[in-house]
Amino acid sequence: MFEIIKRDGLARKGVLHTPHGKLETPALLPVINPKMVTVKPTELYHEFGFRGLITNSYIIRNDPALHERALREGLHSMLDFPGVIMTDSGTFQSHMYGEVDVSNEEIVSFQRSIGSDIGTVLDVFTEPYWTEEQTWDSIRLTLKRTEEATSIKGNMMLAGVVQGSVYPQLREECARAMAFMDLDVHPIGGVVPLMEQYRYLELVDIIIASKKGLTPERPVHLFGAGHPMILALATLLGCDMFDSASYAKFARDDRMMFVDGTARLQDMHGLECDCPACQGHDIESLRTMKKNEREIIIARHNLYELRREIKRIHRAISEGTLWELAETRCRAHPALLDGIRRLDEHAEFLERHEPLSRDGAMFYTGTETLSRPSFYRYHKRSMECYVPLFHRCVVLDEVGKPHGRHMGDTFTSLLSQGVLPLVRTPFGLVPPELNELYPLAQSLFPQIIDASTAETMEIREKEFLSAHGLEITDTYNEQTKNFDVNLLRAVAVARYQFGKEAAKILFDGDIELVVSKKTGKIRNVLVNGEHILSMRAGDGYYSLRLEGARKLVENLPSPKMRVTVVDDAVPFNREGRNVFCGFVYDSDPNLIPMDEVMVVSRAGELLAVGRALMTRDEMLSFEKGMAVKVREGTSSQQHHNVLDDL
Amino acid sequence: MFEIIKRDGLARKGVLHTPHGKLETPALLPVINPKMVTVKPTELYHEFGFRGLITNSYIIRNDPALHERALREGLHSMLDFPGVIMTDSGTFQSHMYGEVDVSNEEIVSFQRSIGSDIGTVLDVFTEPYWTEEQTWDSIRLTLKRTEEATSIKGNMMLAGVVQGSVYPQLREECARAMAFMDLDVHPIGGVVPLMEQYRYLELVDIIIASKKGLTPERPVHLFGAGHPMILALATLLGCDMFDSASYAKFARDDRMMFVDGTARLQDMHGLECDCPACQGHDIESLRTMKKNEREIIIARHNLYELRREIKRIHRAISEGTLWELAETRCRAHPALLDGIRRLDEHAEFLERHEPLSRDGAMFYTGTETLSRPSFYRYHKRSMECYVPLFHRCVVLDEVGKPHGRHMGDTFTSLLSQGVLPLVRTPFGLVPPELNELYPLAQSLFPQIIDASTAETMEIREKEFLSAHGLEITDTYNEQTKNFDVNLLRAVAVARYQFGKEAAKILFDGDIELVVSKKTGKIRNVLVNGEHILSMRAGDGYYSLRLEGARKLVENLPSPKMRVTVVDDAVPFNREGRNVFCGFVYDSDPNLIPMDEVMVVSRAGELLAVGRALMTRDEMLSFEKGMAVKVREGTSSQQHHNVLDDL
Repeated sequence: MFEIIKRDGLARKGVLHTPHGKLETPALLPVINPKMVTVKPTELYHEFGFRGLITNSYIIRNDPALHERALREGLHSMLDFPGVIMTDSGTFQSHMYGEVDVSNEEIVSFQRSIGSDIGTVLDVFTEPYWTEEQTWDSIRLTLKRTEEATSIKGNMMLAGVVQGSVYPQLREECARAMAFMDLDVHPIGGVVPLMEQYRYLELVDIIIASKKGLTPERPVHLFGAGHPMILALATLLGCDMFDSASYAKFARDDRMMFVDGTARLQDMHGLECDCPACQGHDIESLRTMKKNEREIIIARHNLYELRREIKRIHRAISEGTLWELAETRCRAHPALLDGIRRLDEHAEFLERHEPLSRDGAMFYTGTETLSRPSFYRYHKRSMECYVPLFHRCVVLDEVGKPHGRHMGDTFTSLLSQGVLPLVRTPFGLVPPELNELYPLAQSLFPQIIDASTAETMEIREKEFLSAHGLEITDTYNEQTKNFDVNLLRAVAVARYQFGKEAAKILFDGDIELVVSKKTGKIRNVLVNGEHILSMRAGDGYYSLRLEGARKLVENLPSPKMRVTVVDDAVPFNREGRNVFCGFVYDSDPNLIPMDEVMVVSRAGELLAVGRALMTRDEMLSFEKGMAVKVREGTSSQQHHNVLDDL
Repeated sequence: MFEIIKRDGLARKGVLHTPHGKLETPALLPVINPKMVTVKPTELYHEFGFRGLITNSYIIRNDPALHERALREGLHSMLDFPGVIMTDSGTFQSHMYGEVDVSNEEIVSFQRSIGSDIGTVLDVFTEPYWTEEQTWDSIRLTLKRTEEATSIKGNMMLAGVVQGSVYPQLREECARAMAFMDLDVHPIGGVVPLMEQYRYLELVDIIIASKKGLTPERPVHLFGAGHPMILALATLLGCDMFDSASYAKFARDDRMMFVDGTARLQDMHGLECDCPACQGHDIESLRTMKKNEREIIIARHNLYELRREIKRIHRAISEGTLWELAETRCRAHPALLDGIRRLDEHAEFLERHEPLSRDGAMFYTGTETLSRPSFYRYHKRSMECYVPLFHRCVVLDEVGKPHGRHMGDTFTSLLSQGVLPLVRTPFGLVPPELNELYPLAQSLFPQIIDASTAETMEIREKEFLSAHGLEITDTYNEQTKNFDVNLLRAVAVARYQFGKEAAKILFDGDIELVVSKKTGKIRNVLVNGEHILSMRAGDGYYSLRLEGARKLVENLPSPKMRVTVVDDAVPFNREGRNVFCGFVYDSDPNLIPMDEVMVVSRAGELLAVGRALMTRDEMLSFEKGMAVKVREGTSSQQHHNVLDDL
């Protein structure tokens, strides 16, 4: 059973519960070749802290001594590893040597007999050079075997491998077929040749296609991804597990893995590594020591580097900076840069999982940054949900400077002259009403804008102007009417965050704004004397209050902005308890993480307001984990203090 | 005395010889506040391996106890540090507190009396907000004090600080004036406010301006640069020394330094550091320990991170990958990215120090890569030194693929039809004769070309076509004449490497090519039966042979391609010994590192051939270090085997 702890877009920190304890993901499982152990499993567990490893059941099966021992003592005792053991099935051997002398039924049963925590189906490795037809034929066989394996697995968790060569459509279909089978983990298989040939562009397409087809509550394992330089990108795309045989294989060839690439010992002019394996060594001492001693040191170095990067990725997910990390890591190789550049093609899919907001500033790292889904989202919503006050506008150039600071006077003055002031940013044109929203106000850009960024900006600007029928003007009116930017902002943010229809319902009545004396920013919105919304200082979005939710429940058609819970949960949510996955009956299909939602009963009664942490798919698929962080229930015991959110 | 060991453009690995041993550069000197020691100097030396530190003579002077002790025992004994001690003068205190109560004469004498290895003039800190006039007035005072200090310093090495606020022209003038004074090290001062305000764009201009004015044989110290994220960029621009008080200051505020930025402990969601200071700790244990214990651990972490980055930079210089490293590091902050983007403005200056070739492949890391001087150089030389065979051409799109592989047949066929095949690359258009030259054949690009890269390519393509009067055609001739691409290449490479005039001299006569049977590539060029050139397989450039040099010495006007040595050196170089700096009389002012040169006597007699490792400025300025690596002298004892170079 898999549970999400924290997510950022497709990336997630989770916990996979297994018979041998919890595996925190993203996780790297070192590969142990039972016939050639470079670093002992017990060291992997106790010294390095790896809570899982992967070994090959086919190799064990074919070695009489290991075979007998594994059946007798079980895998965990044989390998002396107390953590999670996943086993591969022999598929990779069939890729390497053409075929294997075992049936799916036999190898799945064997994995179960030796006590593997996660066994793997004997899928068919789809080679990158295969035709589409050949690939589809072999997928059918894989699916048949996978179905067969689910009836054999017993209590063993089972990994169903997504195949499909380089054909995204086939990958997606294979994944979707497996989503309906009783499986626990989904490796994406057949990708080692692509990684060996640095075909990261195709790898990105394959991962995304697989993610589209799979069901979200199972962890995705990128089979054979064991280089630290690729882990951030793969995690960004929603991979949760990795395995590495490379740490040992590379060590055999005197190759050291770093996040910025592989270095061959003979080419290196120095060693700057502080990891426990390298400490006390320099490049000369490494070169002159015995080959077998060196191999162990390098293998251990590679494991430390992998461990460090996995931890770094965990931190980045928690801190909301995984995009920055992945974009930086992709500088390690031009082919990896192709991988991140390819994300431009997948903006729409990525946007569906992009949170409304993050803590902290967003950093631009290069032209690739403009492909992030937050840029796509702003462009889309600013076209669909924004309503301009005038159709005459001016464009102010503020690139590279913090937006909306010290510009209040300019804005007010221009508005009073009947002209809409738009600020040019790498996100597109930003009207004054939206300039405090994440990520517009929380992003840092260089002053020197490259041509790619400028080109994208120009395209988006034209589309924005045209969508709203805006015309750039240089004739201003006499100073006529003064507009309260805060009042405009109050409505514009609601439209942007909740959509036009909901905004109209919320703002129907006499509007009163409570404004911070210190910052001049909106804190609360009252309509007809009722406190319906609070504005968060950090990201400029609203928190929905119960009174606002009441207006919406009455007037906004279901299922918009709603999470419906099962009957059993009703009394708990009404009292202000959070909504957990198992208790979600249904929800708005358009929810994105961090959206404000109304928790309602199946009869449509309002129970609570809160913030969604997941998409609908996720809420309905996961057994465990928080779906909605409830802020207040309709029968909450204690009165909620509105300032708690600020 | 300062000596270069290895260089890459403006960046250099060097050794500064001092009374307390050698300081290998690039070097970071931790700052020791003698009144508040966080990490003991003896630990800095023995545990961390820092061979130098910097402390403040003004603080020592103003503390009666320290004052007395420093005079009595000397600085090295007082601080218990056996390495190089540099002292600052109180200038930074004048920046912080408005003024200091000491004269230049007094503080320079004091530094000498307490045994500082490198003392510093009491220069005037030029604030970034100063006017140009105010800045120039204070520079005059700084120059006067610097001149005064040179007469007081005695045996102490003296640091003359380049000032000039944000005015590049003033920085350059200040630097140039100091180049004629008796100084040993040049800090670039007054930059801390710029770094604190993330004004890296201006910092880049200031460093480059200072480098232009300074004389190359003295190390350049970037005062106050103590964050690991900036060291690669500063080294790339020719800074040799850095100092860090931040390691301790940041630790006091619970801030950890990483190459990808600063992280505040309270914001961090994990600790992935493997450095000796962090080992055994996690984020929780750090947070919950006593403040003073934690401060020491973080300070030590910061020092380990700095040490690691300095070592990483040493390795990058040696391996020729500093551009890649600096471009990647600059992703840490958009303002730092501005710094590297600014280099586009300085391409001409950078190109003068850019080596002809490097070992290994060049990686594209982003649009910023196109500002590297190697791109500028190819564009310039391909315009000036290339002579097209035809004026009708076709453009082949091979972006993202290795150039010139498997295209031999296409080339031959097109040439035989009277059409010049040009390959589109991010360097510009590449004719078949040049496609094996570094960096054209040794570079890796992504397949997805962004608009900035495409735009630069387009501009350069147009300029190239126009410079050579080339026209893109789609009408081909009948197959007429077959051209030997190797023969075309032999001449084209000579023009590109040595210039048109030298190429004409070299190829005057009957040309015979010795071609590798295995690779089909040119190995040797014989003219009238004499072996004049060998072609290197690695980078596609020529090594000049003695017979070739003889032709050039007779026909190419001096000082082109020449390094003239003083009379004393003549017999040694004639025997094939290398040319060292102190013995260079003069040289071709256009030499770039890795250029082929003729070593000649003052009378113009050819003594040897070899490869220049420096520019003329450097050859004439340095006292120590190799200026020309000689391949063969005219009286070399043993016959040189031409295959040695291949």
